[in-house]
Amino acid sequence: MGLSFLIHRPTKIVLVGLNYKAHAKELNMPLPPEPIIFMKPVTALIGPCECIVYPSQATRVDYEAELAIVMKAVCKDIEPKDVMAHIEGFTCLNDVTARDIQKRDVQWTRAKSFDSFCPVGPEIVKAIDPNNLAIRSFLNGELKQDSNTAEFIFTVEELVSFISHVMTLMPGDIIATGTPGGIGAMHRGDTIEVTIEGIGTLRNYVG
Amino acid sequence: MGLSFLIHRPTKIVLVGLNYKAHAKELNMPLPPEPIIFMKPVTALIGPCECIVYPSQATRVDYEAELAIVMKAVCKDIEPKDVMAHIEGFTCLNDVTARDIQKRDVQWTRAKSFDSFCPVGPEIVKAIDPNNLAIRSFLNGELKQDSNTAEFIFTVEELVSFISHVMTLMPGDIIATGTPGGIGAMHRGDTIEVTIEGIGTLRNYVG
Repeated sequence: MGLSFLIHRPTKIVLVGLNYKAHAKELNMPLPPEPIIFMKPVTALIGPCECIVYPSQATRVDYEAELAIVMKAVCKDIEPKDVMAHIEGFTCLNDVTARDIQKRDVQWTRAKSFDSFCPVGPEIVKAIDPNNLAIRSFLNGELKQDSNTAEFIFTVEELVSFISHVMTLMPGDIIATGTPGGIGAMHRGDTIEVTIEGIGTLRNYVG
Repeated sequence: MGLSFLIHRPTKIVLVGLNYKAHAKELNMPLPPEPIIFMKPVTALIGPCECIVYPSQATRVDYEAELAIVMKAVCKDIEPKDVMAHIEGFTCLNDVTARDIQKRDVQWTRAKSFDSFCPVGPEIVKAIDPNNLAIRSFLNGELKQDSNTAEFIFTVEELVSFISHVMTLMPGDIIATGTPGGIGAMHRGDTIEVTIEGIGTLRNYVG
């Protein structure tokens, strides 16, 4: 099915670092006072059932299950209470990361920007409460991440408002909301699934 | 004139950290073994004579004069010797940075992604040697940066090849090549100019 479920072609993909309370505790890190944002290029996007290509430069490639927000309307400087009216809906996203490269570089961009490192899907769902959804990942059928977006440090409304005070958001733009604890490595031949309550399962293969 | 001189609308803007030998020495930093890359969103682009909007959240906003590469063709995994054939040409770019926010965040994305923080222009020039060009910036007419791209740690060919081994480059995509020493703060009402030999002058106002 590829990316045809995305109504608009995104102009950017903005992601958020540490955003689950239990994950911060697990890492023994203080809760961040503000969201830390970074980006992936749109060339990293793939759809459901497509293949995550293991880069020859990497020695460790991790999954990170995330709830993704898909924007509907051009917006700038919006307040949290007005955010929902500007959202097209929600989908699953896998923030695939070359962990060895992330640790080597000061900036996360290279480690997260390889082609195929941004699987999204399987569809965009609107009528859900994005701040109270079970989120899980399964590696070859085995449960690896198991949390709920109620654990968010910054809610969907807070994140979109924060980012909109930096940059204009365009129709189709994707915002990923951080990953819970339980991240780990994938290997060639693996199947990785991100499952979010009310949305469905994003399944990809590592090749 | 806005951005009409860009033939293709870029899908991404990739920038490179420390890439001038004298600047590394000035900062007392070792030469990086590999380029460090980061991105700005395309919503940060403005053209010549347009206004850099000083964000209300920032207390220090700096200019950074850079040579920018504009890509011509879709490419992936290209070798340095093949890079020039995939380039549309070169232009001036100002990597505007909210320095106080950059120091606070671990990642540079927010500090460099505000709307209007990526002035480019005034035109795309092809028939020049990009690795041997005088590059200067002037704040209110006063010389601030004065270097030559011959001081590059990584040449244009090496940078594009390196980035193409991470992500597919698309027609119109912009790659900025780092800034020389002499960066500094701008204030509302200032005029900032980036001048590159053989290309011309990119002038913007701070408002």
